[in-house]
Amino acid sequence: MSTEQLLFIPVILGTAREGRRSEHAARFVFEELKKREGIETELIDVREHRLPATDDTGETETARNILPTLERADGFIVVSPEYNHGYPGELKMFLDMSDGQYAKKPIAICGVSEGAVGGARMMEQLRNVILDLGATPILAAVYFATVEKLFNEEGEIQDDSYRDRVSKMFDSLLWYTKVLKAGRERESE
Amino acid sequence: MSTEQLLFIPVILGTAREGRRSEHAARFVFEELKKREGIETELIDVREHRLPATDDTGETETARNILPTLERADGFIVVSPEYNHGYPGELKMFLDMSDGQYAKKPIAICGVSEGAVGGARMMEQLRNVILDLGATPILAAVYFATVEKLFNEEGEIQDDSYRDRVSKMFDSLLWYTKVLKAGRERESE
Amino acid sequence: MSTEQLLFIPVILGTAREGRRSEHAARFVFEELKKREGIETELIDVREHRLPATDDTGETETARNILPTLERADGFIVVSPEYNHGYPGELKMFLDMSDGQYAKKPIAICGVSEGAVGGARMMEQLRNVILDLGATPILAAVYFATVEKLFNEEGEIQDDSYRDRVSKMFDSLLWYTKVLKAGRERESE
Amino acid sequence: MSTEQLLFIPVILGTAREGRRSEHAARFVFEELKKREGIETELIDVREHRLPATDDTGETETARNILPTLERADGFIVVSPEYNHGYPGELKMFLDMSDGQYAKKPIAICGVSEGAVGGARMMEQLRNVILDLGATPILAAVYFATVEKLFNEEGEIQDDSYRDRVSKMFDSLLWYTKVLKAGRERESE
Repeated sequence: MSTEQLLFIPVILGTAREGRRSEHAARFVFEELKKREGIETELIDVREHRLPATDDTGETETARNILPTLERADGFIVVSPEYNHGYPGELKMFLDMSDGQYAKKPIAICGVSEGAVGGARMMEQLRNVILDLGATPILAAVYFATVEKLFNEEGEIQDDSYRDRVSKMFDSLLWYTKVLKAGRERESE
Repeated sequence: MSTEQLLFIPVILGTAREGRRSEHAARFVFEELKKREGIETELIDVREHRLPATDDTGETETARNILPTLERADGFIVVSPEYNHGYPGELKMFLDMSDGQYAKKPIAICGVSEGAVGGARMMEQLRNVILDLGATPILAAVYFATVEKLFNEEGEIQDDSYRDRVSKMFDSLLWYTKVLKAGRERESE
Repeated sequence: MSTEQLLFIPVILGTAREGRRSEHAARFVFEELKKREGIETELIDVREHRLPATDDTGETETARNILPTLERADGFIVVSPEYNHGYPGELKMFLDMSDGQYAKKPIAICGVSEGAVGGARMMEQLRNVILDLGATPILAAVYFATVEKLFNEEGEIQDDSYRDRVSKMFDSLLWYTKVLKAGRERESE
Repeated sequence: MSTEQLLFIPVILGTAREGRRSEHAARFVFEELKKREGIETELIDVREHRLPATDDTGETETARNILPTLERADGFIVVSPEYNHGYPGELKMFLDMSDGQYAKKPIAICGVSEGAVGGARMMEQLRNVILDLGATPILAAVYFATVEKLFNEEGEIQDDSYRDRVSKMFDSLLWYTKVLKAGRERESE
């Protein structure tokens, strides 16, 4: 038996808008995360898990499809644009659908924006939401600012410094992921 | 010709969730507002204007249906529950759909909650969103706390002090509505 | 008698920290505002109006010195850095000291930061504070980002585009200042 | 050698205002915490650690006096009123003074208010500040609402349910305190 379990950290793409640039950012984060040893990941696209309205019963088909994956996760990365200083509605419905699956697990946020702010305001709002889901928001974050220049048509990143930025975020997220997982496991012994 | 124009102030019900209690609160606000002279109002239910994803082009059928009404409005009241410290996703998609229709118009917020906080945290997040829509958030607000006791099965309010609370909110909202309307009209002369 | 009254718009410098860079930004805004016709302004430095603790009685000597100036103002510009995602403590004490002096007057915020975010998070928090003072927060803002490069040793701005940015903020602030003043005056007739 | 180390959890009283009611709440929390086994605590009153202005060098006498205590702490409880929807200025200066002492340590917040909201808005703003200090905000919180009735003249609490509320907050805070401490210790091995 290996003492080293794989950590499962899905990347959640938080917008379903037509023409979304955040998909480039989410795929970049996802591909970089796959390079890390000891990590299992998956790209969860809110476009594929849409609800017509907030549902917090966990009883919809959408919920039954995705909640087991969230339950199995050890931590999360949310990649989301900022719309009017807040988070996208479809991301909020996705998060509100849960029923304890995020509890005592860390969540890192990556912001995406056309301007220079990089989603910083959305992050502030989202961290308070995340906290109420029972999760642990972490400070480590990546700001994908001026996103229309940052990726080319093929979705390739044009600024290599982002590999390092993303890597630092992973370091912090993995620290919290391991530490909180150890805590949850001790609790359930 | 009367010098007194009617002011058009729609009430936006901000959740489409099954079993929503906020509908009682929104209907109560709407009925109280109808009693005021010089006011035209309308109950706009986000349930009837849903989008599957954020769209900010204003080009969807949903947008074409509702944006002219928003354009014609002089001010707004949003009645919304607080979900996980934030606003409902469907309300956010409704607001993000706009394209200048809220500009220089005041918006009051009524919060609805099962607990004692009455939506206060949602209001703080929503005011920053509203501001980025170009609208003017106002402080005057009504907190429909412990909503499951506040209305009976028929949706009748059980605490008469709310008539006065709502009335005070109207006073403030109407002050801003008139003042900002005068400003917009002078501008377009 | 002129029908055009001067509008009095003080600029509030919101930090008293040793070595503060925000002083350059505040002086720049102040000097640009002085060039506008029809405006009276004044630079209010929180360093000169410090309290050892929150006081909201309006009865301290500090309050008696500054509140009449705030009372006389028609609108405000707050220039403030972002410290740990929030506003400086001395700015908060300065604002909490008031007793209605900001009511129904617009406040624009300029953010100052060493990074790229330009105080955007501080602005979001501060707007909710401003609203509770009875004032009207406006969206128009200037983000003095990477401030250590933006001004030289003499405090001269190195990026001329900021004159235009500040000017656009003035346009919006003055619109609200005039419109709300007209409203306050009609009310007191 | 005992395998059980004492956990050091100071209670920070976040206002220095004359006539502060939050002192009752802070003393109540402090006394309840002292009853817990395995806990060392201390009441830190921002009134005794005031700065005339933000200082983040850690070099003032005030900083030199208090930072070693913060450094030694394993977690924190902040008890603070809400002033104009935000945190007190003196609390912000106290927090901004730090230089890494809160890193990877959990902080619980207790809110105090005269109204029904119990400081909920202050908590939202403060959690984003706390996060930038490197600390881990937790959801568990106690809302000391309508504080003027909650404590009598002698500062005795009039609603016994608060013992249970505080106790539940301690449970959550201690979980995070132990788990994060284990993580920090493993790291430094």
